[in-house]
Amino acid sequence: MRARHFLLLGASVLAGSLLWTGRPVSAEPMEGRVVRLAELEIDPAQLEGYKAALKEEIETSIRVEPGVLSLYAVSVKGHPDQIRLFEMYASVAAYQAHLEAPHFRKYKTETAGMVKSLTLLETEPILLGSKFR
Amino acid sequence: MRARHFLLLGASVLAGSLLWTGRPVSAEPMEGRVVRLAELEIDPAQLEGYKAALKEEIETSIRVEPGVLSLYAVSVKGHPDQIRLFEMYASVAAYQAHLEAPHFRKYKTETAGMVKSLTLLETEPILLGSKFR
Repeated sequence: MRARHFLLLGASVLAGSLLWTGRPVSAEPMEGRVVRLAELEIDPAQLEGYKAALKEEIETSIRVEPGVLSLYAVSVKGHPDQIRLFEMYASVAAYQAHLEAPHFRKYKTETAGMVKSLTLLETEPILLGSKFR
Repeated sequence: MRARHFLLLGASVLAGSLLWTGRPVSAEPMEGRVVRLAELEIDPAQLEGYKAALKEEIETSIRVEPGVLSLYAVSVKGHPDQIRLFEMYASVAAYQAHLEAPHFRKYKTETAGMVKSLTLLETEPILLGSKFR
């Protein structure tokens, strides 16, 4: 009994440590994923307000929307008012649901007067290589 | 003994299922991460060769370099020769190591005559929101 106990426990711990890397055993197919890029120029006088609204929108989307996989926000080095977003969704349906989500609409309304220009780029994924998925 | 056995086993399985989501229990700090963006225009006559070299470079980097977290390659919809890369490294050291890696140098040499223009953008991360990490 004791030997079997440790064998089973050991197997469980081993399985846990393999999963610890964050890599799922079977990768989801990349084909369904939707990647959108955004390039924004923000009014420098309102940059802090914009970044606060953006962070809240990203945190909420990742937390409550199952199909919002990644929302990466960066600024161009030396040009903090030049923002780039890399957005990855699980499917077209997940992307469309995000556009209708109340926290996304709130972000759009709050930041409408802060954004000087916005360029959205739809994309075709070539390869989405990651340690995480 | 049997009760304790199942308690321990249950805890291990529970831990495994929590990790199954791909979310580590403690998030790594975002501060050390390096994000670089690249915008490339490829010679249309050599696009398939370029994409094959790019995919090999991405797959190898993700597999063998611990500090290469994500390499996402997409093309602009309707403009397959316009490539965008989103690159995320664990640290400045990991980024510099990648630039010196033999598979990266091979990719650069192989594709030198295929790339019509290349714009590299260094960035400051604002928020890197993701289901995975």
